[in-house]
Amino acid sequence: MGLLVDRRDQAFVLYEMLGLESFFNNPKYGDQSKDVYDMTLDLVEKIAMEEALPQLALGDREGAQFREGNVIVPEGFKKLHAIMNESGLFLLHQPPEHGGMGFPYVMDIAVREHTVFNMAFTLYPEAALGAADLIATFGTDEQKEKYMAPMLAGKWGGTMVLTEPAAGSDVGALKTKAIPQPDGSYRIKGSKIFITAGENDLFENIVHPVLARIEGDPEGTGGISIFLVPKYHVNADGSLGERNDMCATGIEHKMGLKASATCSLSFGDRSECYGELLGEPRNGMRIMFQMMNGARIGMGLQGTGTASAAYLHALNYAKERMQGADLANMSNPQAPRVPIINHPDVRRMLLWMKSHVEGMRALLYFSAWADDKSKMEEGDEARTWKGIVDLLVPVVKAYCTDVGFKVTEQAIQIYGGYGYTQEYPVEQLMRDLKIGSIYEGTNGIQSLDLVGRKLSLDNGKPFAALVAKMRETVADADESLQQLAAIVGDAVATLEDTARFFADCHQQGKPQNPIIKAYPFLNLFGNVSLGWFHLWQADLAAKQLAGIYADAGVEATDTAATHGLAADNAEAAFYLGKVKSATYYIRNILPEAKMQGELIQNGDLSILEIPDASFG
Amino acid sequence: MGLLVDRRDQAFVLYEMLGLESFFNNPKYGDQSKDVYDMTLDLVEKIAMEEALPQLALGDREGAQFREGNVIVPEGFKKLHAIMNESGLFLLHQPPEHGGMGFPYVMDIAVREHTVFNMAFTLYPEAALGAADLIATFGTDEQKEKYMAPMLAGKWGGTMVLTEPAAGSDVGALKTKAIPQPDGSYRIKGSKIFITAGENDLFENIVHPVLARIEGDPEGTGGISIFLVPKYHVNADGSLGERNDMCATGIEHKMGLKASATCSLSFGDRSECYGELLGEPRNGMRIMFQMMNGARIGMGLQGTGTASAAYLHALNYAKERMQGADLANMSNPQAPRVPIINHPDVRRMLLWMKSHVEGMRALLYFSAWADDKSKMEEGDEARTWKGIVDLLVPVVKAYCTDVGFKVTEQAIQIYGGYGYTQEYPVEQLMRDLKIGSIYEGTNGIQSLDLVGRKLSLDNGKPFAALVAKMRETVADADESLQQLAAIVGDAVATLEDTARFFADCHQQGKPQNPIIKAYPFLNLFGNVSLGWFHLWQADLAAKQLAGIYADAGVEATDTAATHGLAADNAEAAFYLGKVKSATYYIRNILPEAKMQGELIQNGDLSILEIPDASFG
Repeated sequence: MGLLVDRRDQAFVLYEMLGLESFFNNPKYGDQSKDVYDMTLDLVEKIAMEEALPQLALGDREGAQFREGNVIVPEGFKKLHAIMNESGLFLLHQPPEHGGMGFPYVMDIAVREHTVFNMAFTLYPEAALGAADLIATFGTDEQKEKYMAPMLAGKWGGTMVLTEPAAGSDVGALKTKAIPQPDGSYRIKGSKIFITAGENDLFENIVHPVLARIEGDPEGTGGISIFLVPKYHVNADGSLGERNDMCATGIEHKMGLKASATCSLSFGDRSECYGELLGEPRNGMRIMFQMMNGARIGMGLQGTGTASAAYLHALNYAKERMQGADLANMSNPQAPRVPIINHPDVRRMLLWMKSHVEGMRALLYFSAWADDKSKMEEGDEARTWKGIVDLLVPVVKAYCTDVGFKVTEQAIQIYGGYGYTQEYPVEQLMRDLKIGSIYEGTNGIQSLDLVGRKLSLDNGKPFAALVAKMRETVADADESLQQLAAIVGDAVATLEDTARFFADCHQQGKPQNPIIKAYPFLNLFGNVSLGWFHLWQADLAAKQLAGIYADAGVEATDTAATHGLAADNAEAAFYLGKVKSATYYIRNILPEAKMQGELIQNGDLSILEIPDASFG
Repeated sequence: MGLLVDRRDQAFVLYEMLGLESFFNNPKYGDQSKDVYDMTLDLVEKIAMEEALPQLALGDREGAQFREGNVIVPEGFKKLHAIMNESGLFLLHQPPEHGGMGFPYVMDIAVREHTVFNMAFTLYPEAALGAADLIATFGTDEQKEKYMAPMLAGKWGGTMVLTEPAAGSDVGALKTKAIPQPDGSYRIKGSKIFITAGENDLFENIVHPVLARIEGDPEGTGGISIFLVPKYHVNADGSLGERNDMCATGIEHKMGLKASATCSLSFGDRSECYGELLGEPRNGMRIMFQMMNGARIGMGLQGTGTASAAYLHALNYAKERMQGADLANMSNPQAPRVPIINHPDVRRMLLWMKSHVEGMRALLYFSAWADDKSKMEEGDEARTWKGIVDLLVPVVKAYCTDVGFKVTEQAIQIYGGYGYTQEYPVEQLMRDLKIGSIYEGTNGIQSLDLVGRKLSLDNGKPFAALVAKMRETVADADESLQQLAAIVGDAVATLEDTARFFADCHQQGKPQNPIIKAYPFLNLFGNVSLGWFHLWQADLAAKQLAGIYADAGVEATDTAATHGLAADNAEAAFYLGKVKSATYYIRNILPEAKMQGELIQNGDLSILEIPDASFG
């Protein structure tokens, strides 16, 4: 067992659940193989454990340092970046024409799950790759030629420059100006805040995609354009020229992600800041939105991967830490001390964590896989898969960051007092993950996106298609899982019923209920999805388990025999764990969906009715 | 509105709900008055805002420093300690014979709610007072004479020395030895960890109550005694003598409470460490338990007070921070920007926080008030009140620390990206409070205490008495609150029903279910209690509101008129807020009790059935 990601569960989701091997029949992935994927996962697992894990605490203690306009990243990050860069892991999902491996998105996600727990580090390369993707999609040939190669090679960084002091969630209110120049370029003038990797000494140059308004363009989001603003001018031969007039004016001191430089940037403060238009004028928001899905799934990945690392660390601790006697011997002071995994209340927390981590992994990988499907299929089929991705993105982003955070909190609880100290990594995992519910659109905004736009997307077809898939799993569930299937079926009905309630509210011109109940609805959506994935997985696992028991001549109902087998046979242990994880989730968490649905539909408007003065 | 505690809500709970003025008819409190209490609250509010609040961040950034066996507390804490000490606020609950004011416990709690958000500071004086109380209750006249006066005067500190590396939750496993000496004293030898205020330069001397085992005494908790171990020997005239052979060997580096020194202590490492037996031999655990209720209610206070400060800071921010347009004008970029309290999703979070903070305050104050009642009444009545306190202590401790933590998390969410930075106090409030679910017995242990000991205490009479009080509130609820009363009535029935299920399990010799469902049961208990308190409060508020509306000639159903009144009339705003807070809680949170009860009783044993090897 690793301490970061359960490789066996990864393989289960990728191959047994999602049938990734069928991808190799597609010409796009014809030259790839499970062996290549496994080797890649071996490689990233090794680097993550040996290089990225030690840098977690070191990065936190050293932090990013701001000195006279420069940002110094922790020393160890430079080595880690060199190793990661050398490994080629950053370019897995890039197409071959950009020097990449052309891996499906779901494999890219699986690989990144290993390193994402050290988000303070991974944000640097990911910001660069995100900016490069933006240029690849919307840039002119000249811009691609000028910027992309060094960005993909890990030599130049990139960012995404949106937020201003008075324009956070309200992007349309931004004040940064772009003034057209006779040569077709623009002068950029304005101040930005909260820019991840906005300045740092990891890269020779940084290319900033900056949202700004061309002088004279309308207010609001419709008047926003996007510009490429390099830290250093780039000469015709690709070498670096003079410093552009943009600089960092400070970095935030944060609860976590301390090694990630969150910068305030100033553009055109002293003389003239050069910028190039990217894409069409006044298309900034549309361009930005193209990148949004990837960025938001990346946040869901942070939630899932951080939770996975927290769970496995806590599990490892629970197996090693001796404390107290077994329940049966509680009153005998001479009874042997046992590992705390023996204590029922510790097991309760561990199984809660396990079932949520595995459920989030299934949700996350399914979403990335659906994105791959949308690009492999054609016509309506492709459109449906694309719609399902769009639908799931806010759920992946918000649910996985919120639930992931709760997992890190439980991990601290497993460690007891030690978990609160910096001797163990769990307190930092919690601090680092807290930002997940805020950045890339707060989780409140995700829920409004889900309820206000995604449910009714394409006339509600993606939602209907997803629900149909859930029902299919319920209908096809193994005989031995009928009790669980019935609970999942009820939960799916609640989800559908609640979505219909929202649609009715909208039709009746009463949007208040959907708006104030959007966040509870997103949680309901997440819970029901996890219940569905657990049933899907339990069905596969139960069948495998039946085969293993038959081979071993063991009765499924003979607890002593199945536990004995699980102790010796890793596959038996794994599949039995999947069934128990699913059983726990579906019997103890999922039934809450019914009440969640009722509460969403209760018509209570206290939230809107309470006068401001009555809050206190 | 303050930024730490809602004074109006405090007064509401103390006088309107708990009828504190009736205490003045009791000779014990005959010389006290509402005026004196109000002046005391004015004083502590002023000190909290002007002195303790600025020290919150300063203390965190400076932290407690360990240098060659000494611990240096933040400079500002020394001034703050002098001011607090001078004010007499520490001694409110102490009896007059110890120089105190003899205030009821509930008033002491109300006063402490103002400063408890700065827990890193308050732990120093509170640890000292806790140790002094221990000596007052169990010490010989000689010990009282020797130690108490300087401890109560704030000159000497105190601690509670329990934990060892291999004896955390399992106190009985401790290894520290006490060797009897011919003069009746003991030599103490051992190592302890996680000792709050175990070493510091705030006090001239520190008196450590230390759990240890007298040589030859039995293993387990039954063989533990408690000893007073002073940092400096005390001469016959009360002056300080030589340094005793005990010292700090380090402090923990923690996620939060950084200014609170959490020390490792070594006793008798170099030569001989002097200790005096406190109370009878082998009575250490019983003596400790006497202090437990106060300490655990103190943790509930930390959860409630920290949540209150987080809520009021977030509320203040939500009223000032301009962002986005009103919902109705969303698509018009020229629409005026509004404070974010206008946004429904922000209101959702604020009302969630408000209703939980007020509910926790009611639970906390009720518990302290019940403790006062147990000391004012006699016979069965006193015994019932004492039983109710014992029953509620684990709920107060666990529920208020867990829910309080969630409130701090929501506060960060209200601030958005700024909440994640150290520019605002909410991120620190969250870090500081995280330990609440762990220390003074983890919240898992609290739930086992509730289910395993407290429900059946005194043949279940305290539980029955509490449930009867809940039913009384339901039966007596105002006509206008019948819908809410019905929901509370159902929830109380679920609580009773679930407790009966546990009793049946025990009778049938099947303790597994109560053990693995203990923590969910504690949450159920907390939810139902808060629902009850909200109904109780709404009933009082609705009556007051009816009077105000009648006086003003306003119809309760006329929203424009009632909002208009609330904007001008602080009392109308307050009472309407109470009704809305209760309505929100009872209609949107409390119904979960039904499902919680069902899930507790579902008989699922996956937690115990999953083999260790299947966890991963």
